[in-house]
Amino acid sequence: MRIPFEQMKSEIKRVMIKAGLTEKQASMCAKVHAESSRDGVYSHGLNRVSRFIDYVGRGWVDIKAIPTLVKSCGCMENYDGNMGIGILNAKFAINRAMELAKENNIGVVSLRNTTHWMRGGTYAWDAANDGFLSVCWTNTESCMPAWGSKVPCVGNNPFCIGVPRKEGNIVLDMAMSQYSYGKLQVTRLNGDQLPYDGGFDEEGNLTTDPGLIEESKRILPTGFWKGSGFAILLDLVAAVLSNGKPTSEIDKVGKGGGGGSSQIFIAINPNTFSSEEEINRILESTISQLGSAVPTKEGGKVYYPGERTAKTREDSDRNGIIVDETVWNEICNL
Amino acid sequence: MRIPFEQMKSEIKRVMIKAGLTEKQASMCAKVHAESSRDGVYSHGLNRVSRFIDYVGRGWVDIKAIPTLVKSCGCMENYDGNMGIGILNAKFAINRAMELAKENNIGVVSLRNTTHWMRGGTYAWDAANDGFLSVCWTNTESCMPAWGSKVPCVGNNPFCIGVPRKEGNIVLDMAMSQYSYGKLQVTRLNGDQLPYDGGFDEEGNLTTDPGLIEESKRILPTGFWKGSGFAILLDLVAAVLSNGKPTSEIDKVGKGGGGGSSQIFIAINPNTFSSEEEINRILESTISQLGSAVPTKEGGKVYYPGERTAKTREDSDRNGIIVDETVWNEICNL
Repeated sequence: MRIPFEQMKSEIKRVMIKAGLTEKQASMCAKVHAESSRDGVYSHGLNRVSRFIDYVGRGWVDIKAIPTLVKSCGCMENYDGNMGIGILNAKFAINRAMELAKENNIGVVSLRNTTHWMRGGTYAWDAANDGFLSVCWTNTESCMPAWGSKVPCVGNNPFCIGVPRKEGNIVLDMAMSQYSYGKLQVTRLNGDQLPYDGGFDEEGNLTTDPGLIEESKRILPTGFWKGSGFAILLDLVAAVLSNGKPTSEIDKVGKGGGGGSSQIFIAINPNTFSSEEEINRILESTISQLGSAVPTKEGGKVYYPGERTAKTREDSDRNGIIVDETVWNEICNL
Repeated sequence: MRIPFEQMKSEIKRVMIKAGLTEKQASMCAKVHAESSRDGVYSHGLNRVSRFIDYVGRGWVDIKAIPTLVKSCGCMENYDGNMGIGILNAKFAINRAMELAKENNIGVVSLRNTTHWMRGGTYAWDAANDGFLSVCWTNTESCMPAWGSKVPCVGNNPFCIGVPRKEGNIVLDMAMSQYSYGKLQVTRLNGDQLPYDGGFDEEGNLTTDPGLIEESKRILPTGFWKGSGFAILLDLVAAVLSNGKPTSEIDKVGKGGGGGSSQIFIAINPNTFSSEEEINRILESTISQLGSAVPTKEGGKVYYPGERTAKTREDSDRNGIIVDETVWNEICNL
């Protein structure tokens, strides 16, 4: 089933207003959720709306709260998100980072006590669309065993980097788990196996069986020990720079990660040391090397990060956004 | 065979002076190589010295060159490494980043046209020892297929993050390939298999056989598509911010990556927004959560990044640094 972008956005907006958000809040949040689905990040698009509404109802997200400045130090600023709406807090933070970068070439905003920012790539795409290099990440509650452990004790801490490019932004949006729980669920419901090992079963064997991983909760860090270590460092730097909670403290509060995440938003002027022509040369030389690399399968193609997202977006804009009919009906009945 | 730190350092220093380095240059480089071996990063310690000497002889490293300031913008500075000694250029850059961070809370130094920095972790450990948060990375020549390709077309682009901590710094030092070629070689020579898949064989099957991967040159990116994408973004951001060469342009020059790498060094004052007590709370809460997580094997332990390095260092300091006798004799005869 396919739904046009504007229809999805207005339906989500309606539901959010009903949940108590102001017209402006609802409009901004609905846009981000619809954009996520449009770009193929279904898990954090339409599919995530009902959980957000549920959290608002439980008081785990404070729709009245806005970010407050804690301290400003030149090109760096620290905000408290006051457990407000994650999307709006993050939008505010990346915008502030870009404002600071306009004056200083670099802007760093750290945000504490915020709620789920939904799709992390949102903010790197935003910054790229506005012409800024960006690096953003968040910590989360524990959802993955650290390497060497069999119980969840680190977050999957999504991490994004964006590079602006007129012909198509180059954007990486990766969590530190090899697959999300959403991917495991969808794969299991389809009766499929994962393309590569996604975790361990109860006996500690690597497996591509999504159901066995859901049971053991032993989801695999990206690159085994590497993604585990990277997740730990992202967590610590975010908490230290925002004076916020690390994963270990978010866990103690519980409430669906509602202990309040720590997030970092860095925006940099790409022209600080390079002209447009020089940047163009760097980017096109790389895109060209990747595009002409021998593919693994005949007729295949090597994509740069963000390229497939842009293709999905084009398809969604032309033919409507793919939605799960059950989810769509659920939203329409909220 | 084990060699005391001071003996290793002075032997490397002797060889470097013989190759034409000044006493001071030789002393600094020898220290970094010996520290790498001491910390268990054998591939970039003693084992790497003869290749460095070879590159100096070929003129691929200009031992007379020092970094020159290209442009300064507040807390950001751009240097040309002039194809000088990679270790000394990188030491200079992380020191400048820390100087800038002393004034601005954050310092960002980009370096272009530099040569191999050897062990990337060197600079994150340095910064942590001096009390700074740091993020550093380099691009490299192509040594790994991008995801979807069967030929090398991206670098393994080592990436490091360091967090200072009195009881033991927390330091991540990871390349974007799951294993290094050095690890493949050592594993093959020992007649062993890799613990987890490390690449594809010529037929495109995942394998733990190091020899088959060396033949196919299809080494696996960390986390499959994720490490591939991360490597591409690290490359682009480093090249754009340093106005230097991306991997695709380094490849065109050849000469063992001698086209000149692009590197980024970021140092941040951890106390910008958090007091010592607050940082202590954040770090110890996390270390404690990791340390008490149920291990995969009975009697096992979950380590934080840098913890095992510190253990190896202690062992080396007490019992001497483990060296391959052939390599040691080779250096002694240089």
